Amino acid sequence: MTQARIGVTGLAVMGANLARNLARHGHTVAVHNRSQHRTKTLIEEYGHEGAFVPCETPEHLVAALERPRRILIMVKAGAATDAVIEEFAPLLEPGDMLVDGGNAHFLDTRRREAALRERGIHFVGAGVSGGEEGALLGPSIMPGGSAESYAALGPLLEDIAAKVDGVPCCTHIGPDGAGHFVKMVHNGIEYADMQLIAEAYDLLRQGLGLSPAELAEVFAEWNRGELSSYLIEITSEVLRQVDAATGRPFVDIVADRAEQKGTGRWTVQIALDLGVPVSGIAEAVFARAVSGDAELRRAARALPGPSAPTAGAVGEGFAEDVRRALYASKIVAYAQGFDQIRAGSAEYGWDVDPGALATVWRGGCIIRAVFLDRIREAYTAGQRSSAPASLLLAPYFAEALTVAQGAWRRVVARAAELGVPAPGFSTALAYYDALRAERLPAALIQGQRDFFGAHTYRRADREGVFHTLWSGDRTEIET
Amino acid sequence: MTQARIGVTGLAVMGANLARNLARHGHTVAVHNRSQHRTKTLIEEYGHEGAFVPCETPEHLVAALERPRRILIMVKAGAATDAVIEEFAPLLEPGDMLVDGGNAHFLDTRRREAALRERGIHFVGAGVSGGEEGALLGPSIMPGGSAESYAALGPLLEDIAAKVDGVPCCTHIGPDGAGHFVKMVHNGIEYADMQLIAEAYDLLRQGLGLSPAELAEVFAEWNRGELSSYLIEITSEVLRQVDAATGRPFVDIVADRAEQKGTGRWTVQIALDLGVPVSGIAEAVFARAVSGDAELRRAARALPGPSAPTAGAVGEGFAEDVRRALYASKIVAYAQGFDQIRAGSAEYGWDVDPGALATVWRGGCIIRAVFLDRIREAYTAGQRSSAPASLLLAPYFAEALTVAQGAWRRVVARAAELGVPAPGFSTALAYYDALRAERLPAALIQGQRDFFGAHTYRRADREGVFHTLWSGDRTEIET
Repeated sequence: MTQARIGVTGLAVMGANLARNLARHGHTVAVHNRSQHRTKTLIEEYGHEGAFVPCETPEHLVAALERPRRILIMVKAGAATDAVIEEFAPLLEPGDMLVDGGNAHFLDTRRREAALRERGIHFVGAGVSGGEEGALLGPSIMPGGSAESYAALGPLLEDIAAKVDGVPCCTHIGPDGAGHFVKMVHNGIEYADMQLIAEAYDLLRQGLGLSPAELAEVFAEWNRGELSSYLIEITSEVLRQVDAATGRPFVDIVADRAEQKGTGRWTVQIALDLGVPVSGIAEAVFARAVSGDAELRRAARALPGPSAPTAGAVGEGFAEDVRRALYASKIVAYAQGFDQIRAGSAEYGWDVDPGALATVWRGGCIIRAVFLDRIREAYTAGQRSSAPASLLLAPYFAEALTVAQGAWRRVVARAAELGVPAPGFSTALAYYDALRAERLPAALIQGQRDFFGAHTYRRADREGVFHTLWSGDRTEIET
Repeated sequence: MTQARIGVTGLAVMGANLARNLARHGHTVAVHNRSQHRTKTLIEEYGHEGAFVPCETPEHLVAALERPRRILIMVKAGAATDAVIEEFAPLLEPGDMLVDGGNAHFLDTRRREAALRERGIHFVGAGVSGGEEGALLGPSIMPGGSAESYAALGPLLEDIAAKVDGVPCCTHIGPDGAGHFVKMVHNGIEYADMQLIAEAYDLLRQGLGLSPAELAEVFAEWNRGELSSYLIEITSEVLRQVDAATGRPFVDIVADRAEQKGTGRWTVQIALDLGVPVSGIAEAVFARAVSGDAELRRAARALPGPSAPTAGAVGEGFAEDVRRALYASKIVAYAQGFDQIRAGSAEYGWDVDPGALATVWRGGCIIRAVFLDRIREAYTAGQRSSAPASLLLAPYFAEALTVAQGAWRRVVARAAELGVPAPGFSTALAYYDALRAERLPAALIQGQRDFFGAHTYRRADREGVFHTLWSGDRTEIET
């Protein structure tokens, strides 16, 4: 009997599509699901696509696999993942591999990896991006775990990953939770990118009075330039869509309450622990929360806006200004996300290669874009030791920001004047201006802190820690 | 032998000052510290202020107290608090009270309260604000825990709290972690308030070219109006200060790297869990992080700013515009903080009274201000069931925002044009504009999510959950 090269347990759409993708690439795949009807359906509908071995029990799945065994777990993140691990781990032998392809929190992945390592089993937390279609046709895959496990798993995963210029969108990210960490930040960046696109749409619609159909053309045009990306492309598609029931633009019949599943929130919470300012992602998460508070929004409609009319209130160059502001804000959001990855890598000792990461994000995933190639170049142009301290400082992006900044300032100013909320654009510009500031008013904050809490301060002109006797004679003491 | 009414363990500055405050109010205070020199110093220097009972051991402290015993723990938050609890709990009897007056995370307080409740001991997490001076002369106190414990503790705490119009700045906040939760949000609001003041200072200095001494006068003037508050007052004092060593303005010799101790970060992390957009607090936390990244800031100085000169680049009304923008942004930051308190209260079943909370923040604490009286009025004007859905909607604040919004828009626009970072001002305005928007571009985001992830959407015109077959014939199905 031929032994299967890999097993997949959990055959909802993502698991089934990854199993089919493996089979289509010539790999024999053992498939298992807690309730057997999913296994049966998969074989009935797609059994002709390749070599599947349907398995009724975990024991059966384990027996069907060549050694060392590779088992891909595709179940709901959280308790379900722990339950499946506990079911399979006792059946495995040292050297076998359990791969979690769900959206686990990287701290859970670290815990699981450490526990299974003690039992000699490789646990691989693998970020998988690209949705259902990506899973079938080629996702972007971000596996963590040991180098040894990647040697055995990598070729299969690279086989089924998306390819850009022949290079697979899959690489070994780093030990233990590194894969799920970068997938989390990927999703955070995705939140920010979507929010910025939404603000651009809103500004163009309210500022220029363009219709969704006209805006679909604008985004299609933008998709041919430096903004070219999957998210811009589908924005054009969504804006072009007409609701069959009403004949109205689709975007006008959708309830304007954006939902979220949690990875954006995690990204911000972890960034706060790491001390990395990811304001672009945070504003995107908050904007979704605001949109969802229907009761408060209903009550707040009575609050006044600017008296000037909005539609048509801006000049001809406004669309191009918005395009540039979007590009500049996007650079900031990605720079902040990559800063978080660098900080996480340092904190947990992962040695994540940002250039390699940008490479695997070029295709397969939701944020795939020409833009990622520029990021890859920024990080691989020199030695890794000479990598830019921030993407903003890489020559290509610094030049792009220089070109864009005038337009960016005009757009943020017009948004404030028109009363169109643009928290993503404005936080990105504020971050840019804070970074380049010669002096920040943080000095005043240090003074306040020393005044009310004796928190001490440092001086700009010499070493040491100081305190002023504010409620005494106001002399300075060194502490 | 007279039994002491209350014991204090942990005699660093905060603990010693609270003990002195109690003694000065005529209460016999048993005092204890792990290393006895602090106890000795306290008695030697301040023993004449009242009735102290110095205790060498926990057993001695417990024996010195009347029953039920009240012990105030003033040690470092975290493991030290747990250690002290474990030291004292075995010595106590049912009905005794342990009060943690440190800056504990409210989830730790919940855990401790539940564990001690099983042993019949009341654990009270009490937020204490006001710094060292407040501890001695009258802090704002926010005790959580059981109503029964407040009946026994409240009179003592109200005695030593600050008073405004004769009303003590101390009230029972709610069960278990409620006190430490509201103290955390207090600190988050404090971060936001300080950031907004810092932005106002920066805008006036760069926009109008005023000196710190001139700005000290501006803030002193503002302190006589609706912005009147402790933070505005000390801002004026800090700006007036001249560095003795150099003869330069103090604010110019302080290193412009704002530090933080963590409660601001906690506030944002918990707000994210609760789904409450506290963008004003988040931007303040991020701004401190940016200021502290010296290496990146050094490298980023090369990035270009606007070509126009800044100093003197704005008109005469700019200072008044900034004052109004500051007030409007402050209203938003406090509204978001109170939203978080309402959400936390609902999540944990605390039934926190926002009007009572505003009342105890009017004095003693760092954010004390005339402003808090307006908030108190907003929440106590009608029945609690008719409280405004947001502070922004209370008549007084809605009117203030109406008056301020033109100036607010001009200031955010000028900040963008001048290249002065104003993330706090601009996120507050964006929040205001998002809340009052008839439609938000969140509808586009829902369309994108349905396109790439089949996440479904709701319609504005009828009930149900829908999905469009984007990669099929693009018809809509109800799921």
